[in-house]
Order: sequence, then C-alpha cells, then structure tokens
Amino acid sequence: MTAQRRTAPALREDDVVSAIAEIVGPASGKIVLGIGDDAALWQPSRSHRSAITSDVLIEGVHFTRDAMTLEDAGWRAMAANASDLAAMGARPVLATVALGVPPHSTSEEIETLYCGLAAAARQDRLAIVGGDLSRAPVLTIAITAVGEVRQSNVKTRAGARPGTAIAVTGRLGAARAGLDVARGAVTLAPELEIEALRAFRRPEARCAEGRFLAASRNVLAMMDCSDGLSTDLARLCAASGCGAEIESVPVAAAARAAAEAAGLSPEAYAVAGGEDFELIAAIRPRAFAHLQRRFALRFGRELHRAGVVRAQPGIEMHGRPLERTGWDHFAGG
Amino acid sequence: MTAQRRTAPALREDDVVSAIAEIVGPASGKIVLGIGDDAALWQPSRSHRSAITSDVLIEGVHFTRDAMTLEDAGWRAMAANASDLAAMGARPVLATVALGVPPHSTSEEIETLYCGLAAAARQDRLAIVGGDLSRAPVLTIAITAVGEVRQSNVKTRAGARPGTAIAVTGRLGAARAGLDVARGAVTLAPELEIEALRAFRRPEARCAEGRFLAASRNVLAMMDCSDGLSTDLARLCAASGCGAEIESVPVAAAARAAAEAAGLSPEAYAVAGGEDFELIAAIRPRAFAHLQRRFALRFGRELHRAGVVRAQPGIEMHGRPLERTGWDHFAGG
Repeated sequence: MTAQRRTAPALREDDVVSAIAEIVGPASGKIVLGIGDDAALWQPSRSHRSAITSDVLIEGVHFTRDAMTLEDAGWRAMAANASDLAAMGARPVLATVALGVPPHSTSEEIETLYCGLAAAARQDRLAIVGGDLSRAPVLTIAITAVGEVRQSNVKTRAGARPGTAIAVTGRLGAARAGLDVARGAVTLAPELEIEALRAFRRPEARCAEGRFLAASRNVLAMMDCSDGLSTDLARLCAASGCGAEIESVPVAAAARAAAEAAGLSPEAYAVAGGEDFELIAAIRPRAFAHLQRRFALRFGRELHRAGVVRAQPGIEMHGRPLERTGWDHFAGG
Repeated sequence: MTAQRRTAPALREDDVVSAIAEIVGPASGKIVLGIGDDAALWQPSRSHRSAITSDVLIEGVHFTRDAMTLEDAGWRAMAANASDLAAMGARPVLATVALGVPPHSTSEEIETLYCGLAAAARQDRLAIVGGDLSRAPVLTIAITAVGEVRQSNVKTRAGARPGTAIAVTGRLGAARAGLDVARGAVTLAPELEIEALRAFRRPEARCAEGRFLAASRNVLAMMDCSDGLSTDLARLCAASGCGAEIESVPVAAAARAAAEAAGLSPEAYAVAGGEDFELIAAIRPRAFAHLQRRFALRFGRELHRAGVVRAQPGIEMHGRPLERTGWDHFAGG
C-alpha cells in the first residue's frame, strides 16, 4: 500500500489477470473455481492426504535473463514445485503463482513467462488456479503447488536406516553444466551443449518416478536433489539420524565434459551442482536390484545406486568427508 | 542457482529453518507433516471443498520499514491471506511462507518477522506448515493459505443481482489514515492515531464474519475490500455483470479526521484507501435488516449498508461516476 499509486497505469492489473486466465485455460476436473476470485476451490480426494509446497525463484538469485528466457524461468519455477511433490510421492493437482513484476515490464513479458509456467504445469498436470500480481524490484516468481498422496505411500526424509542403498533417479550435474554453457564459461560438443542447456532451462520433475518409488514398501525415504547431492543427501541423512557413504556418482555426460574442460573432478562437479530435480531414495538393499529392473522397464532409464546409508553421521565420498558444497540460499556475501 | 555461492555463510539456511520451526511450533490437528520436508501434508475434510489463495508483500511496494516493524509486516502479510479465505466463507487451515531475504539480514530480523507471521496465523487458526527461504534484493513475503468451506456456503464475486444491498463489515479508511500517520503526513488526536496505526499495522481478517455471512442463503456474493471499496466493488460488480450505487460510506473515525486535516472528502478518502480487510457482501434486500441484527448480536459491531447493486454497469457515488482510485499494482511510473 505504500509506494506508487494513482497515476496513469502502463499495465492494468485486471487486464493482465484476464490475459493470464486465457493462457492458463478454464478450470476443470477437481478444480471447482479457478482464477479470478479471492480464492480458488477444489475437491480434495477422500482417500488421500493433501501435500503442499512453496518455492520461489528470484531474478539475479535463481536466474538471470542472459542465461535463460522468461519462458524458461517460468518453466523452471513450476518444475521446482512439481519436483517437491514428486519427492513426497504425491500426484500433482494444482498450483498458485504469485508474481512480482519489475517496473516497465510489458504485458508481453508477463505473458511469455506465463507460457513457460503453463507449459510446465501442463506437463506435470498441475492446474494453475490463481495467485497474485504485484510490483517488485526484480522479477519474483513464488509458486505453491498442491498434490495428493495415499498415507501408506508417503515418503519423508526421515525413514533411511543404516545399510539402506542410496538411489538416484538420473545422472547429475547437467543443469550446472548448462549454467556454465549459458554463461560462456565452458564450450562443449554441440550435442552435449544441447543436453546441458535443456537440463538447465527445461528441467523435468520426476513426478511419475516419485509415485512409482513411493508405492514400494522397500523405499524408506525420499527427497529431491534440487540443491545438489552433497547438500540434499546430508539433509536426508540428518532427518533420518544417520550418515552416508557415496560410492559412485552418476555423472551426466555434459557434466563430465564440462568438469574436464574446467580441470575439475567430474564427481565433485556433479554432487555440487544443484537444480537437477532428480530424486534421492533410500531403498532396502535386498530389494534394490528388483526395483532397479522394474524402474528400467517402466521408465527406460537407469535407477542409479550412488552409495549406502551408515550409522555414523556425516557424508563421505570414497572414504573422505564430503563438504556441503551445494546451494545454500544464505551462503555468500 | 545463478548468483552467490560457496563462500563462508553468514546465515545457514538449515539453521534459520530450525529457528523458524521453533517459533511456529509442532504440527497438530489436521496437519500430518509440518515444516522440514519437501512438502507438508494434511488431512482435508471429507465434507468440504478446499480453498487456496496467495498474496505477496514486497518491501518498498507494500510496506516500508519506517512505517511498520518487521513484526507488523509479518502480521499484515498473513492477515491479507486470511482475509481472502474469509471472503470465500472458508475456515482457515494452513499457510506456507516463501521468504526472500535481503543480503546482510540477521537471523534476529527473520525471527522478528516470523513472530508477526506466527501471531497473525494463531489469531486466524492457520498452521504454518512450511515454505521456502531465499535471498532477494528486498524483503519479499509470499504466503499461500488453504481453507475449507462447504460447497453450499461458497460465495464468489459473481452472485450479485440488481437490487441487492451492498454491505460492508466495518468502517473504512483507518488503514490509509494509519499510513498517513506513520509517514508523518498527518497528526491526529492520540486515540485516533492509535486506532489508525493499529488498523494499518495489525489489521484483522474477518474470518468469523465471513463464515457467518457465507452460511446465509441471502448473501449472494462476497469479496474482501483489500484494494479499496472503489476498486473492489467494481470487481465484484464486473464479475456479477452489473454495477452499483454507493449511497453511504461507513468512514472510520480516524479516516474522517485524517481526511478533514488534509482537506479531502472523508467518503472519497475512505473508498480509495485499501488494506482495510473488511468484507463486501451483496445481500437480498428483504433479508438485510434481519441479517444486520444477527450480525450485531454475534459480533457486537454494525453490518453497514453502503449502497445497492444496479443493472447498469459502473459504480456511482451519490449519483456521480466513481473512479477506481484504489490500489492497482501496476498503476504508477
């Protein structure tokens, strides 16, 4: 209520809301009331628990316009929320988007951003049901996503036990390599650059994989790996009251090439790189091989074994303590 | 993922999350899993629809630290979301908080803000179940609130019909007067300054009033008045496909005094002032007096009659067209 008021508007809030409603499309299915009222309404499933998560992307902190388009930023913001639902084993239902828009933004920019938000939401079957629009010093995308999961399938971070195997749903480090490529810090072979940029700009939340793993009694804990394996595995282990030994990091081809070009260890590069949106799961060791086969049949990709949970706190890689080198939002100057 | 990384942290994200979890308290009741995992979980009511709303407060846009404390900003942000649930007739259940924190913030500042968030959440019975923490150029508070409402009680903006009475749940303009007092733009008698500052810094969402009105078949439409009566009544009427005549504005005593001190019309001052968090309701005219008596008995306050809905589009006040002078987030330079 404090700042700019009552001069000729460049953009009118209600006009922008109308354009957004058009991009998002009408409410359907479980959604009883979508964009345009004080709140949206939906009919929750009677047999499920509801899950909620919020994730904010801020220009200059989580993304810069020289490294990705506004459409990419929208996609990434929505995928980050879907990834959190995936980590709980929840089926995505709906999302709200609170947008902070810098002065002199055009309605075209807001619509471009919304095209990315809506495309990722469609991919993950999240209905965009409402939100908020405001001015902000930099572009700010605050999303909340709601999903549903059967109580018996809920996987928190806290269920890992010593001896359980640590699985990762995909190779790591490609998003970090994509950031390095986008910044011009590294040059890779064309097909690797495409892989890296795609992982960085259009990451895919592992929603189906999360529900598949959540349905197994042999999966004891799960979380997503959005802040880097070194940071997120430490969080999973801390929540479970144990530690872990990383034995083998599944490194994405683009990450391996980017690390080698920069003279870094590919495994260290991959565990420190955040925003890969793969899931980390703690799996009973005797069930691992069977689950891995079923996973490969279902998704056509490998469920990678990255290590083992230990009673002793702390994360080691190849016998040496691993620093939490991943993303901490308050690290830095 | 783009900006600051990997230098000695001043604040550690996980430490801040622990401090927040302490302020917020443990999960209980419907909340199955609270702060600390990838998503929070709750058990939705089987007989109700779920309602969701998002509202963001940004430093320099919605508040400045010279006009309110961080505790006030936290309170106001939470109350704004509760007010949106109130407008749907929904009972508040839970909220998530995505916080963007400027560089060099202290953990004390974040905890002060959270004390305000938690106090408003307790008042409105919203459980804070999670959220996100990030850096941002200015303090950014993005809240999403979830509530529940019986389908038969849902009141949207779209139900008003020509001839229905327009009711407001309280006097308007006090929050605007509070902003003027806080800025030093006006000086009022001490008791009026206290009223004004309280309305501005600690506004109360009308959750109980919203549920009371929503339960009546004679209430046809409802919304909250957070952007000013002139703007929000125009939105309600546009959604209902009609217009309205404002006959009498219930002006708060502090707003009347502030307007007179500034040489402005008290009614114009009050309808343009946003952030009052009163509810606007469209009520069948023959039921108005009865509902007004029941409202007074229940809440000890008056349900004010502000005007009447007309078939002709547009809002008039005392026979003259009323400009939408309230808050538009894109108005201004």
